[in-house]
Amino acid sequence: MRIAIDVMGGDHAPRAQVESAKAAAAEWPDTQLILVGDPEAIKPLLGPDVPANITIESALEVIGSEDEPVKAVRRKTNSSMVVAGRLVKEGKADAMISAGNTGALMATGLLVVGRLKGIERPALAPMFPTLDQVGILALDMGANMDAKPEHLLQYAIMGSMYRSKVHGIANPRVGLLNVGTEAAKGNELTKAAYELLEQAPINFVGNVESRDVLNGPCDVVVCDGFSGNIMLKSIEGAASVVFKVLREQMTSSFTAKIAASILKPKLRKVRELFDYNEYNGAPLLGVNGLVIKAHGSSDANAMKVAIRETRKTIGNGLISAIAEEISGK
Amino acid sequence: MRIAIDVMGGDHAPRAQVESAKAAAAEWPDTQLILVGDPEAIKPLLGPDVPANITIESALEVIGSEDEPVKAVRRKTNSSMVVAGRLVKEGKADAMISAGNTGALMATGLLVVGRLKGIERPALAPMFPTLDQVGILALDMGANMDAKPEHLLQYAIMGSMYRSKVHGIANPRVGLLNVGTEAAKGNELTKAAYELLEQAPINFVGNVESRDVLNGPCDVVVCDGFSGNIMLKSIEGAASVVFKVLREQMTSSFTAKIAASILKPKLRKVRELFDYNEYNGAPLLGVNGLVIKAHGSSDANAMKVAIRETRKTIGNGLISAIAEEISGK
Repeated sequence: MRIAIDVMGGDHAPRAQVESAKAAAAEWPDTQLILVGDPEAIKPLLGPDVPANITIESALEVIGSEDEPVKAVRRKTNSSMVVAGRLVKEGKADAMISAGNTGALMATGLLVVGRLKGIERPALAPMFPTLDQVGILALDMGANMDAKPEHLLQYAIMGSMYRSKVHGIANPRVGLLNVGTEAAKGNELTKAAYELLEQAPINFVGNVESRDVLNGPCDVVVCDGFSGNIMLKSIEGAASVVFKVLREQMTSSFTAKIAASILKPKLRKVRELFDYNEYNGAPLLGVNGLVIKAHGSSDANAMKVAIRETRKTIGNGLISAIAEEISGK
Repeated sequence: MRIAIDVMGGDHAPRAQVESAKAAAAEWPDTQLILVGDPEAIKPLLGPDVPANITIESALEVIGSEDEPVKAVRRKTNSSMVVAGRLVKEGKADAMISAGNTGALMATGLLVVGRLKGIERPALAPMFPTLDQVGILALDMGANMDAKPEHLLQYAIMGSMYRSKVHGIANPRVGLLNVGTEAAKGNELTKAAYELLEQAPINFVGNVESRDVLNGPCDVVVCDGFSGNIMLKSIEGAASVVFKVLREQMTSSFTAKIAASILKPKLRKVRELFDYNEYNGAPLLGVNGLVIKAHGSSDANAMKVAIRETRKTIGNGLISAIAEEISGK
């Protein structure tokens, strides 16, 4: 399998991207890694002993985090992100990974790789950590801010396919993010979506409240990109505030410090539950190829997790299964 | 000042309501507490020594948590909630408090107490805890699931008035809940609302991300009721999961238990930060009277906090100030 990596996108680019590729190349000899970016930046980081399964694809432009997404993708046709997308489009890579500008990656998916026929809006679908450590696929987490009921239906079908094809879950449970569990709850969008989901060829388990998502009430949760983003950042923010106050309290006296040092390994386990890097690599579902978003803040370890997850998605017929299900409707 | 209390609504009704009223009557002799509900249920809890500033208003029907809100308010005209609303409407009470069915309380505000002229949608406005312990007023937290840009504008004006009149904050900072801080971010609703808020007679500080809300980036945050509810429950859910895992880890071995017992008072401080009972008593802003929602799970202490907060809102001209500001537009 061949994976194109946008080497120039992300907070720790290009170092994290190149280092993770070297580690991945050693661990998975069956995987060809195509490093897309400025060769002058990549070569010193690669060093003299370049593994046989790493190649460089030159792309001298860079799309930055401040670039306006659609404009950047249209104009910077020789940027590392767009070139990686083109490799997927042309069948020269089986997937691409980028930790760069999220909006630009969505635009690359739409404009360079292209939408799957019948899909109105591709969706960004990361995994959320859950208490049982199984995780839950949540979509859309921000590819489209506004959604119609029909979009949520397509998200549900695509998310369900992903969980069954990539994670091997038979008959994945699909929930609808809502403000209450009763069928009549919600806004105009969720009320209409509920009716569509009830009729869909999926295992719809009804409404799911955001306070329960971390308990893993289902395998897939669907929502509009705005609400999804609010949920994601609320959870991150709340967890980070609790840990911050915890740290302050545990270093506030001598005895507290001693007690905290005894508990340190235990506390690390709690922290790990919220380690989103362990779930790095979110697919953009609904485009005609595998486009994977890594966290902007990915270090080399997190990038390697994204490569590991991307390997799982290749060769299981996910894209063709989605295409068949959607166009068959 | 005279406060009508719906004694029959809430998980711990009527005991928590009556006990809190007795404590409040002793602490604040200037406050007349009108207990609205079934006298037969109230009297035994009040005991023989009834304080002079407690009276009972008989209301024999009860609106339950399962009742359909609008229908219940229309039909159960002798319910404790509707009767309390009528006391406010008729000027026999300066405010009412209920821990009962939230939807029914919204309907009581609209149908019994009545909307303020010019207000399209009243909003539920609870305080969120923040790291600096100042708190942030968030609205709408669920009175209306869908909102138009003009509604968010009215929420902003009402929230701003509340913070200045009730909490004495000069020129309160108003933020718009959004998925990014840049002006162009968001969905159709927030983009249009942003432009309105920029022109409004308030101290608009721009977009606020849900991950920052607990850090207190502003004094008021506005959003549609659906997103607000998603945020509220995400934060509650994440905090409760962290504490759950923490508890498990801290009791997972003998030494962990010893260390945890030393840290116990410190950990309690962390827990207290997320104690929503400390912020009990959310006003329904935009109705022509003071209608205060207490948490459904309120115990006697939490109910007393709601009474304390309600006292602050009486007599400062909040309602007339909102009416003037809105009709003057």
